[in-house]
Amino acid sequence: MKVAIVGATGETGSSIVNGLLASADTKFDITALVRPTSLKKPEVLDLEKRGVKIAAADLGGPEDEITNQLMGIDVVISTILASELKYEIPLANAAKKAGVKRFVPCFFGPVMPARGMLWFRDHKEDTLNHVQTIYLPYTVIDVGWWYQISLPRVPSGRLDSVVGVTGNRIAGDGSTVCGRTDLRDVGNYVARIIADARTLNQKVFAYTDLRTHNEVYDLIEKLSGEKIEREYLSSEQIEAEIANKDNIDRLSVLQFQKSWDLRGDNTPEYARYLGYQVAKDLYPDFKGISFEDYCKEALEGRLKPLYERRRKATAAA
Amino acid sequence: MKVAIVGATGETGSSIVNGLLASADTKFDITALVRPTSLKKPEVLDLEKRGVKIAAADLGGPEDEITNQLMGIDVVISTILASELKYEIPLANAAKKAGVKRFVPCFFGPVMPARGMLWFRDHKEDTLNHVQTIYLPYTVIDVGWWYQISLPRVPSGRLDSVVGVTGNRIAGDGSTVCGRTDLRDVGNYVARIIADARTLNQKVFAYTDLRTHNEVYDLIEKLSGEKIEREYLSSEQIEAEIANKDNIDRLSVLQFQKSWDLRGDNTPEYARYLGYQVAKDLYPDFKGISFEDYCKEALEGRLKPLYERRRKATAAA
Repeated sequence: MKVAIVGATGETGSSIVNGLLASADTKFDITALVRPTSLKKPEVLDLEKRGVKIAAADLGGPEDEITNQLMGIDVVISTILASELKYEIPLANAAKKAGVKRFVPCFFGPVMPARGMLWFRDHKEDTLNHVQTIYLPYTVIDVGWWYQISLPRVPSGRLDSVVGVTGNRIAGDGSTVCGRTDLRDVGNYVARIIADARTLNQKVFAYTDLRTHNEVYDLIEKLSGEKIEREYLSSEQIEAEIANKDNIDRLSVLQFQKSWDLRGDNTPEYARYLGYQVAKDLYPDFKGISFEDYCKEALEGRLKPLYERRRKATAAA
Repeated sequence: MKVAIVGATGETGSSIVNGLLASADTKFDITALVRPTSLKKPEVLDLEKRGVKIAAADLGGPEDEITNQLMGIDVVISTILASELKYEIPLANAAKKAGVKRFVPCFFGPVMPARGMLWFRDHKEDTLNHVQTIYLPYTVIDVGWWYQISLPRVPSGRLDSVVGVTGNRIAGDGSTVCGRTDLRDVGNYVARIIADARTLNQKVFAYTDLRTHNEVYDLIEKLSGEKIEREYLSSEQIEAEIANKDNIDRLSVLQFQKSWDLRGDNTPEYARYLGYQVAKDLYPDFKGISFEDYCKEALEGRLKPLYERRRKATAAA
């Protein structure tokens, strides 16, 4: 099965490359679609060493050139930055012209209402509407909230390098369940889903762990022996901060918290209501990395921070 | 099963009232939600005589008053004018508060992409997004193109009173299939669908007949012995007329024609791709009025024109 990936060096893209390369069930022939100006970057050369084909593609350029790069490709997977989602439109058009059999637009997040909850989720829905308008076979994959952005700060400071984007702030009373997945498992789920005829033209919710924000903190307290400071934010506080949106990254986090912490959207029940298939039903044999094991790794200092390259670049700038 | 209907005196609403009253499988207790100013209209009094309860509801008024009218109701069905779709938002909120078990928003049209095809279809999608955001159980029902707006003019003039909104104009080459339903069967489909647990939180495409625009005209030529003038419009002509939109009703017809005549959206294949269930799969025993029988009725002058009251009102004004 020939798979082309946009964003293969990003966090989600890397997990997908790893998952496809490690797949025992299906042999994947992987092509990374890379900006012409990025062909010589170390992370792209790394991919090449690992057997990934590299193809130059300028998603802002002529659609026919993208089409040429997609000829013979079975599955196109997009893991694109929120700010670049508009480039999925020419990518989808090219995939249609090239006869691609399945297009996987960039979702890979928590389950939530289609529109009006998270600013860039609306753009993802625009892509899906376009995909459906051009009658392109597709699969939407959501993976819930990553373990990797779930951990709070503990007094000893030993989680500081891997603390999640919500810090120690809990929206609501912390009693709402939320589906979570180890980022390293995203590719393992994707390898199953894109080789599965049952998921064609469907949405799939692939999550490993389901627990409340309080239960996350309780577990870490138990494993660490440390007491975690918990800052509870009311619905009114969250709404006021959202209305005050001065920073787009901060806005995203608040909107995520409103959705999964306050509203409780990111659950298999709500996903089923929205028409998603649930990966646990499709692949009962696949267990994934447990959240408890992830927390132990984190507490033992065995994890690398996320977005390492981006942080280094920011530090250097 | 207690059902409340908005728009019970309109074309779709009347069909639904008839279908529910005639249902042999399920006993429906029907309430028509009527504007306070319309309570004494003859068509409302007619409903009352037929055993339909009448409840005053001002959808632009306080939500709590609508909620009170919906207490104890199992299913709410909206058949509201395109220009009034915004009132489905307070109606859905009230249904949620009243504990309604299934909300049927006003779709009842051809299958097409969710957004960007037909101006008021976008508003229907806004309602659906809102329904899903408040986690209200729902069913979307689309019925394709009505027989009642499908007929062309024939030279003898005997179809003039029942000629369809597309007149004798065919978008494209007339070879695209289109799902059609007799308006009088809409209620019969609805009676099945709202009593069916399989359709909860699903979209259903209920159509009876599937044929091309050319095949419609061929059939009428065969049955009438008359030659039908066929005006074929290219994709470019349709797009130019859409861009030129000077009249909202005319725009709607052009956008419908683009969707089902040019693109071929209104088919069971595309519906399944979009995640719809298909009524023929769910209810293989239900046949519906055949298109051929409808055409015979029309040619024999046995049909009343649609929107009779509206035409009379326009003529009087």
